[in-house]
Amino acid sequence: MAHDVNRQVRLAARPTGTPGPDVWEHTIEPVPEPGAGRLVVEVSHISLDPAMRGWMNAGRSYVPPVEVGAVMRALGVGTVLASRHPDFEAGDVVTGMLGVQTHAESDGSGLQKVRPSEAAPPERHLSVLGMTGMTAYFGLFDVGALQEGDTVVVSAAAGAVGSIVGQLAKTRGARVIGIAGGPEKCAWIVDELGFDAAIDHRSQDVRTELRTHAPDGVDVYFDNVGGDILDAVLTRLARGARVVICGAISQYNETTAPQGPANYLSLLVNRARMQGFVVFDYADRYGEAAAELADLLAQGRIHSREDVVDGTVDDFPEALLRLFRGENTGKLVLRLQAA
Amino acid sequence: MAHDVNRQVRLAARPTGTPGPDVWEHTIEPVPEPGAGRLVVEVSHISLDPAMRGWMNAGRSYVPPVEVGAVMRALGVGTVLASRHPDFEAGDVVTGMLGVQTHAESDGSGLQKVRPSEAAPPERHLSVLGMTGMTAYFGLFDVGALQEGDTVVVSAAAGAVGSIVGQLAKTRGARVIGIAGGPEKCAWIVDELGFDAAIDHRSQDVRTELRTHAPDGVDVYFDNVGGDILDAVLTRLARGARVVICGAISQYNETTAPQGPANYLSLLVNRARMQGFVVFDYADRYGEAAAELADLLAQGRIHSREDVVDGTVDDFPEALLRLFRGENTGKLVLRLQAA
Repeated sequence: MAHDVNRQVRLAARPTGTPGPDVWEHTIEPVPEPGAGRLVVEVSHISLDPAMRGWMNAGRSYVPPVEVGAVMRALGVGTVLASRHPDFEAGDVVTGMLGVQTHAESDGSGLQKVRPSEAAPPERHLSVLGMTGMTAYFGLFDVGALQEGDTVVVSAAAGAVGSIVGQLAKTRGARVIGIAGGPEKCAWIVDELGFDAAIDHRSQDVRTELRTHAPDGVDVYFDNVGGDILDAVLTRLARGARVVICGAISQYNETTAPQGPANYLSLLVNRARMQGFVVFDYADRYGEAAAELADLLAQGRIHSREDVVDGTVDDFPEALLRLFRGENTGKLVLRLQAA
Repeated sequence: MAHDVNRQVRLAARPTGTPGPDVWEHTIEPVPEPGAGRLVVEVSHISLDPAMRGWMNAGRSYVPPVEVGAVMRALGVGTVLASRHPDFEAGDVVTGMLGVQTHAESDGSGLQKVRPSEAAPPERHLSVLGMTGMTAYFGLFDVGALQEGDTVVVSAAAGAVGSIVGQLAKTRGARVIGIAGGPEKCAWIVDELGFDAAIDHRSQDVRTELRTHAPDGVDVYFDNVGGDILDAVLTRLARGARVVICGAISQYNETTAPQGPANYLSLLVNRARMQGFVVFDYADRYGEAAAELADLLAQGRIHSREDVVDGTVDDFPEALLRLFRGENTGKLVLRLQAA
């Protein structure tokens, strides 16, 4: 890779609806030299996450918005190029909020060293071994309070988080139904990942299919999508159900008010709860989750699929849109080639 | 009262929207004689509850619907007229699901003896000392998990449940903001009941007022109304907030799909939960709640107001509509006069 310049993608304007090319600015700067106690990382992989859309909005949320003019926030993996930080040296591979750029300068906070291997390539440290895996683990086990024998439904089931949620639920003795878009994704989650059933929301009626696949109701619903699918699952809750609100990708690019779940009174009838969470709150327990996820992966009890796009940082805006079009299967990652 | 006939109000048809006179049938039957192990109660007071609207609908809920042609389900208070049941004798005052009729025949299940007094007249056993008080108590303390120092918001704050919720929260060291319709109700909850603030949703913007009265956010929201008010409060949740779904009176008579809370993603941002409950689940703990409520009432730390309508069972349909028009302050009760 060319080390002479730092190529960056900055937020040029706050988007309305789907973020088009006009909301981005592509900039080139000299590669920084690390200051005292700091380091510079050459970024090799950039994580693409639905949550990014929320970070682009103004206003109160669980993290401050990306400022207009700033480099877009992104998780990534990279190699330390130069370090004046006592804990890092050149050649270390690290993961953290590196941003959409080829070179990140950092004081080391939030960076973690990882050891990529054939079984755990860099992109996997952005999926099951990274924040994606943490999100699935704490969302399902802590917020969802999964019990053995539960019937679990997960939406965006062939996505990064959803595919891990379903597999984790299976390891704890649950019955798992995935909702995904299209026959390939549905086949993948059943045939390869071992889900008990799949519902193709593009060709099937979710409510009718749930009557067949979850005749006694849904104990845990892990929602990544919101909208009509959330509403359909609400009609099929079991008594005492837990609805985990992880995201709402169907709503993030809407220009009108989001669609609220019209069937929320099912929470009353079924003594159920709907609860949101932010994975960063579990930082002091990441080690516990990472150990279990790595074990399950090594034992072949869960599988991780990364949907790797080869390109440059300039391909980030288009890659991000693939998420919202539902074109990815598994974790979408942009792997940087020399510009 | 005339003991010769049993006047009844039956559900003649399932309503669409607001239940008009056409959904009711007024019938007259002979007063029954109690069979072996059974008793007959002369009804003196009938409870009017928003939940009744739900019982009139077909379909799965937390209790079976009232069948078309059946006497309308209602809580009430009455005096035992004749008994062949070992636990009851003529003259006992009882409360339970007596129905909208002047005389109820029963096997005694679900009936409880009460001792009306000047401090606890019969109608109070349908409000703070009855299911209304139980609903407030378990909804606020168990589902809402109230903590000392919490900021609590309650809607329909001048209604039966809401007025108790706010007062109970004050007894445990919370700051309480009530949302009610009209200046009289707002003045009552602040001046008489000791709420810290009131918001008149008819003349004020709930979201703006919450910014003033709950600058650090809302820890517990006890929702009786749904609709726009639920949505407004969702925008002001504190981190870790609990939204208690007790009812949604604004939605019960809608003929289109209910209005879902468009701002539900506030649950995610604020790591908050929204949870429904049904008071009947707490039956084995009613004693605990009743004891505390009676003590607080005796100490003058909470006040109960019953909005008593004098009439006959034939006045039930019109009295019920007063609830949906928000015309009651405190607990609405129909006190039966001789027909």
